[in-house]
Amino acid sequence: MPLVLNDLLGKPGLQIYQDPELFNFSIDSILLANFATVLNNTKSIVDLCSGNGPIPLYLTTRTSLPIIGVEIQEKSYDLALKSIQINNLESQITMINDNLIDIHKRIGQNCFNLVTCNPPFFKNEAGNKNGNMELTIARHEVFATLDDIIKEASILLNTGGIFSMVHRPDRLVEILETLKKYRLEPKRLRFIYPKKDKQCNHILIEAKKDGKSGGLKILEPLIVYDEDNKWSNEIRKIYNSEV
Amino acid sequence: MPLVLNDLLGKPGLQIYQDPELFNFSIDSILLANFATVLNNTKSIVDLCSGNGPIPLYLTTRTSLPIIGVEIQEKSYDLALKSIQINNLESQITMINDNLIDIHKRIGQNCFNLVTCNPPFFKNEAGNKNGNMELTIARHEVFATLDDIIKEASILLNTGGIFSMVHRPDRLVEILETLKKYRLEPKRLRFIYPKKDKQCNHILIEAKKDGKSGGLKILEPLIVYDEDNKWSNEIRKIYNSEV
Repeated sequence: MPLVLNDLLGKPGLQIYQDPELFNFSIDSILLANFATVLNNTKSIVDLCSGNGPIPLYLTTRTSLPIIGVEIQEKSYDLALKSIQINNLESQITMINDNLIDIHKRIGQNCFNLVTCNPPFFKNEAGNKNGNMELTIARHEVFATLDDIIKEASILLNTGGIFSMVHRPDRLVEILETLKKYRLEPKRLRFIYPKKDKQCNHILIEAKKDGKSGGLKILEPLIVYDEDNKWSNEIRKIYNSEV
Repeated sequence: MPLVLNDLLGKPGLQIYQDPELFNFSIDSILLANFATVLNNTKSIVDLCSGNGPIPLYLTTRTSLPIIGVEIQEKSYDLALKSIQINNLESQITMINDNLIDIHKRIGQNCFNLVTCNPPFFKNEAGNKNGNMELTIARHEVFATLDDIIKEASILLNTGGIFSMVHRPDRLVEILETLKKYRLEPKRLRFIYPKKDKQCNHILIEAKKDGKSGGLKILEPLIVYDEDNKWSNEIRKIYNSEV
């Protein structure tokens, strides 16, 4: 099937290549890229599990800092490269086609201020897989577990650096335990609800390396659809982010 | 100052004695008593940190099962007794004036199906106290810490029994860690937001003794005030609960 070139956001500007047979970027990546804390002292950003690059692309609307994206699957990596080219962002985004485990040996440790990640949400268990290996790898922890990802993020970050991730609510307890295990103190949590009367289906979480214990803030709820089943004002604002 | 006799809910029915100089029950107790899971196989209920008894009183609108309330402060305990009398609930609610620590030695261990608790929210640190000892004890962990409470709840519960608590979001990480430490697996979480665009200020959490790991559900957001600064429909419904 031929590649598709989509707008990343709700108005023309950034474009992103998608392959209908691969994992296509979805709203959770956009919400994470919007949620992640980019501070004045942020100098260096790494995005793990980059896929075809929606998070690095969105982050260029918020900062001109250099961004490194890491993606293990060559086909997704190639799509990200093509998107970077068509948007003329080669000088800001560098993609690396490698497993994130031990990636600090290639790009450095204790030196990044922000690590973002939209990881595979599901454990790598029998019965979870389907015939499409690319989709299985994007959705299941085939090449890196939650523990691997959080451990690597912690190694990459300098003291006070921020790890920002989107995940599923049923793994919240495990996520918090693993963050603490690797010296990442949870500081900001935001729950995403499809509608105001529906259960949470995604969580946005941010933790600070070697942060002081306690002081977690749970931000206002992020509600995706309003009562008319249309995108809420906030979602529309995030998607129309000026580029 | 004289005692005050208030309606517990939004319509006449249950009444509750309050002492303006003591800790007065607030919405968090009502929301917890409404949130707690009362199942067909629930046979016995204990409420820790009962204060003047709002949670046992509210629970009588949901079940005819016997309820034991435990309160360390004699003045609050006396108020609870008076409220139980005026509502003719002596046969359903039993109050005990004691510290919750080791209360299983008086009422039994591994035998309750539901333990509820609206505990003191704040650590017992210097500078946190005010001149009113009763208020300090109700708000700060003077006589029992979060660890003490969760430990005791776990001892009281039988396998599969439910612990249901209201607390503050900044202690979520510690709460989840402590629940796991005492074999209580978090299963239901609900976040309370004062308004839809405000940070969460209370959390409702439920855990199952010896429950299978994982499977946490984050329920729909509970929003207290609507855009006109009036109680939301859900809050009105909870407060007008049929008595």
